[in-house]
Amino acid sequence: MTDAAPHDAPTCDAALTTAFAILGKRWNGMILGVLGSAPVSFSELRRALAGISDSVLSDRLSELTGAGLIDRTVDAGPPVGVRYSLTASGCALMPALDLVRGWAETNLLPGRTPA
Amino acid sequence: MTDAAPHDAPTCDAALTTAFAILGKRWNGMILGVLGSAPVSFSELRRALAGISDSVLSDRLSELTGAGLIDRTVDAGPPVGVRYSLTASGCALMPALDLVRGWAETNLLPGRTPA
Repeated sequence: MTDAAPHDAPTCDAALTTAFAILGKRWNGMILGVLGSAPVSFSELRRALAGISDSVLSDRLSELTGAGLIDRTVDAGPPVGVRYSLTASGCALMPALDLVRGWAETNLLPGRTPA
Repeated sequence: MTDAAPHDAPTCDAALTTAFAILGKRWNGMILGVLGSAPVSFSELRRALAGISDSVLSDRLSELTGAGLIDRTVDAGPPVGVRYSLTASGCALMPALDLVRGWAETNLLPGRTPA
């Protein structure tokens, strides 16, 4: 019996675990990616994310707001409307998302993506 | 009725969608993060990812291998063993994961993480 040396036992670090508790949930990364282009309304967001249901989008927006990544603001109008945008924390994620996007463009072939 | 101008209608781009089809699945980002430190065996990986079951880890490793992100190699031994490591594509993701990790360290407070 031997004890593993510290360098032989990589651990899953807390920061990455915390990040993927949010980003690793279906739609969240994509929602942030869309908001990175411009603040949008609920219906614009739903259109951009083909296949998401109203209730799931609603849940995800609440979670991301709760995590401090997006802001929900009410436009005085007319027409009165709700608009979602990135907070400073959400904006700070954009360089990382850009790297992920660039990586996917050169490293992922559509046929190799798990369903 | 007005048609939205193109810059008012951000779309969820294909590359980010493809990336999050993989990274947006629970454990995958963390598995790649652990393999980014060093190639590891199945049991070392399971230890690093507290809470994952053998069958889920097995499924995730198959998917990531199928997507071309990790390699599975058999050590001649003794003891004979299987070791997982990043492919060139998997390695190319590491700078993006490092940015995600750095972002999480400064922008995510544990109490604000969705459960």
